[in-house]
Amino acid sequence: MTAQTRDDLSAVPGVAPIRDAATAGFVFNHTMLRVRDPRVSLDFYTRVLGFALARKVDFEQAKFSLYFLVLAELAEMPDDDEGRRQWLARQRGVLELTHNHGTESQPAPVYHDGNSEPRGFGHICVSVPDVRAACARMEALGVPFQKKLSDGSMRGIAFIKDPDGYWIELIQPAPLAD
Amino acid sequence: MTAQTRDDLSAVPGVAPIRDAATAGFVFNHTMLRVRDPRVSLDFYTRVLGFALARKVDFEQAKFSLYFLVLAELAEMPDDDEGRRQWLARQRGVLELTHNHGTESQPAPVYHDGNSEPRGFGHICVSVPDVRAACARMEALGVPFQKKLSDGSMRGIAFIKDPDGYWIELIQPAPLAD
Repeated sequence: MTAQTRDDLSAVPGVAPIRDAATAGFVFNHTMLRVRDPRVSLDFYTRVLGFALARKVDFEQAKFSLYFLVLAELAEMPDDDEGRRQWLARQRGVLELTHNHGTESQPAPVYHDGNSEPRGFGHICVSVPDVRAACARMEALGVPFQKKLSDGSMRGIAFIKDPDGYWIELIQPAPLAD
Repeated sequence: MTAQTRDDLSAVPGVAPIRDAATAGFVFNHTMLRVRDPRVSLDFYTRVLGFALARKVDFEQAKFSLYFLVLAELAEMPDDDEGRRQWLARQRGVLELTHNHGTESQPAPVYHDGNSEPRGFGHICVSVPDVRAACARMEALGVPFQKKLSDGSMRGIAFIKDPDGYWIELIQPAPLAD
């Protein structure tokens, strides 16, 4: 793990030498995960992690609903649906949950977390000001852990599991004090 | 698709009535995808989508490397490795690519995109100022499409595929002009 400067990063094979002006204004807006039961997932993401539900879209004929969540205060968002839709599309770090109607009646798990074969997607990550305090609270709330802070060699990070079993990494920006 | 106010959203079953103060400062920081060949993926995400490589971490013994990408200017970031690590951990909308050493020599595809069985993760989404211009540029660059703007009934969105086959939705905040 060599310390790296911006020049080192620009020299990594594959990295484009300059940013194409045609990509100006591009925003990594959201990540979509399918969930078995939106009531359970909304409880988890709002109560445990602090997300706000910013938009819900129902497709009755195609039998699915979309839930857009963001780690922001609901009061920051426009109150009208169209204004909030546009606001949301400009944000970074939105979580989209897709509910295919009826999966909530099927036995869990319905979906694949990506971390056993066939692998692909690995996890999402929530950064918190104090990862020890956050983990203590999650344990008290009965949230299942994939990896506690004390497990393994990487002591600064933990992984919890959401109601579908998707892994959520917890980190803090500042180094962990001993 | 009923227009919804913030009050409607707060009343959706499962949504927590108030945000727990213990979640203050939580940030949806990143999404992790495994990639077969980082040289090819870095080219795609930096040249085609405008991401900057903000951090690279090699785990030689465990034989994997992590690449952290963000849709921001490299010049905005601290130049020293530790400063940039902390800056990165405070951002929303970071993309983490994991390379398990050696997969680049295996026949593609190595990873599962989540959109055939077993399903789970669905896609990431990049919001762009002008989705028609973005799609025209991607077509000119030879990027494969899962769904062009003109396909199907949802005319405002497109899906491209990254080098591992992961779906990337393209949207624009403003309604599409006719």
